[in-house]
Amino acid sequence: MSRAVESDLVERLLDGEHRALARAITKIESQSPGYRDIVSELHAHTGDASVVGITGSPGAGKSTLVDKLAKYYRDQGETVGVIAVDPSSPYTGGAVLGDRIRMASNVGDMDVFFRSMSARGQLGGLSTATADAVKALDAFGKDRIIIETVGAGQNEVDVVKTADTVVVLVQPGSGDDVQMLKAGILEIGDLFVVNKADMEGASRTVAELQEMIHLRDDPRANLDTGHHGADAFDDESADAEASDAPDDPLVWTPQVLETVATTGEGIDELVETLDEHRDYLDASGELAEKARKRAGEEIRQLLRSDVNRLLEAELDRRGGVDEFAEAVVEKETDPYAVAEDVLEPFRECLDGRDD
Amino acid sequence: MSRAVESDLVERLLDGEHRALARAITKIESQSPGYRDIVSELHAHTGDASVVGITGSPGAGKSTLVDKLAKYYRDQGETVGVIAVDPSSPYTGGAVLGDRIRMASNVGDMDVFFRSMSARGQLGGLSTATADAVKALDAFGKDRIIIETVGAGQNEVDVVKTADTVVVLVQPGSGDDVQMLKAGILEIGDLFVVNKADMEGASRTVAELQEMIHLRDDPRANLDTGHHGADAFDDESADAEASDAPDDPLVWTPQVLETVATTGEGIDELVETLDEHRDYLDASGELAEKARKRAGEEIRQLLRSDVNRLLEAELDRRGGVDEFAEAVVEKETDPYAVAEDVLEPFRECLDGRDD
Repeated sequence: MSRAVESDLVERLLDGEHRALARAITKIESQSPGYRDIVSELHAHTGDASVVGITGSPGAGKSTLVDKLAKYYRDQGETVGVIAVDPSSPYTGGAVLGDRIRMASNVGDMDVFFRSMSARGQLGGLSTATADAVKALDAFGKDRIIIETVGAGQNEVDVVKTADTVVVLVQPGSGDDVQMLKAGILEIGDLFVVNKADMEGASRTVAELQEMIHLRDDPRANLDTGHHGADAFDDESADAEASDAPDDPLVWTPQVLETVATTGEGIDELVETLDEHRDYLDASGELAEKARKRAGEEIRQLLRSDVNRLLEAELDRRGGVDEFAEAVVEKETDPYAVAEDVLEPFRECLDGRDD
Repeated sequence: MSRAVESDLVERLLDGEHRALARAITKIESQSPGYRDIVSELHAHTGDASVVGITGSPGAGKSTLVDKLAKYYRDQGETVGVIAVDPSSPYTGGAVLGDRIRMASNVGDMDVFFRSMSARGQLGGLSTATADAVKALDAFGKDRIIIETVGAGQNEVDVVKTADTVVVLVQPGSGDDVQMLKAGILEIGDLFVVNKADMEGASRTVAELQEMIHLRDDPRANLDTGHHGADAFDDESADAEASDAPDDPLVWTPQVLETVATTGEGIDELVETLDEHRDYLDASGELAEKARKRAGEEIRQLLRSDVNRLLEAELDRRGGVDEFAEAVVEKETDPYAVAEDVLEPFRECLDGRDD
């Protein structure tokens, strides 16, 4: 019965009903009963959308850029879905969503579908929910899907890795921003966009980014940190390498672009470079490789959260973790002995099989 | 046989042999075979040490402060163990350890036992290893144990939560540091120490910290963010509350202290306040409550990593995660169906029990 209801929802989603899409994503986000069957059914209909992830510090101009990008695609006759993820906020929907929906309705139709999602305190839950929501948009038939997320922590990195192409938005400034990028987000950026490029210091930020990409992609430069200063003066060769890259469709050197999202300046070049990266992913076989890696990660993530649920149920059946903790404090046992004890039935299950 | 070797190591550790202590911690850090039995055996001998965690940004002066603190305790005739944890470094031992060992030997004996540990890429592995190393030092008989860690990410928070008392070291400055503290570490600080208090801006940093503690501890102030500005002018009442706190042994308001670690200024007041916090923990029953919570967290952490190992073994037995991922990409199945499938033997066996 319930299964039939979900199949109906999936059918209406595949038929292009926006209300069914919205409902499916709500079920995914809240992990409502039956959401797994929905995602399972949708999976077979995915794989056609182009998925771009956009991240950057608060104030870098992400939402303006995303809006302009969405409008650009829309003007080309393509359909667009946007998922704005805020890992630091425990709230969902609300003001941000409301504003963006109004903005979207200015475009004049529902071909730009906006949706915000927020952290739910679950280990890895947000990246799974993002991946599932992307599947819903993909199966629905959106041509372009944009994942927008704030900041550069591990959660954001996990979220943005759901995309095929990762854009890191950087604000021109003192160079502090660029320094912060070293801490994780640099490795995953395919494109770096210096937004607000009309601000003072923009060209310096571009140069700094180019140097960091050079250091990142040249293992010799990376290892030879003693010659850091020399590398900085060696920018010409870095530029030469970078400009060579587009000639070879099997090699991708991260590009640094400049935009002024508020005026739309640089958006066409951004779109073009995004398409170039997509072509590179196709030609090099990395698109397929990324899909495999992502599938493996999704499987592992689901297994971890599912088995943790089994563990919690087993702990409860045995009197709850608090009782064990009390025994540990009283020196009647210790954490390793408890873990051994609680996991014994799990081990037995696996060892006791006939095959 | 192996078990006998480990019992011998434990025995020698409990007899006060520093080499056995060092070897036990090495086994804990590298998760060598038998390390679990060692920690299990040690557990019964723990609970007497006073454990302090110290965290702060690089350059805040952590190691100098820790060295001064260790020397102070040593001069009082107490024994000290220090574990310096660097979650961002994949390396262990090395230069930092070397320097600190030399410093320690200046103290003239082995009553200050220094040890550095680093990240090993394992989920939660570092906080488990830290907790286990603390147990080794505690069982050995160290009176004071100091856990020193860099930064304010989730890993650092997990590591420092192994301690009964958490000290957050702050460098005087533009207030940026204090702003960063909002992101997680503020909630866990029992003491805030503005080190390098002879630097310009120190008193402003102290005032900012006091305001933040006021906002944190007064739920009304927290919710009423519209009156943020007004709260800033309301500092007097915040100070009044803070200075009231020590009178009531059952309430703890985080204290803000000033030190100049290089000269030793403020160390005696820090020691005194640490003892006050310890007394508060004892009197309020929070020490016992913390021990229970920590034991629960240790159990959960071990269960999670152990069950993940079982899962990986099960995945390998079934052909490996890559094969499943390939099938997902080929649309022969989907991640939820795979998770369901791989977990079935666990579910079946747990459900099929007689009790």
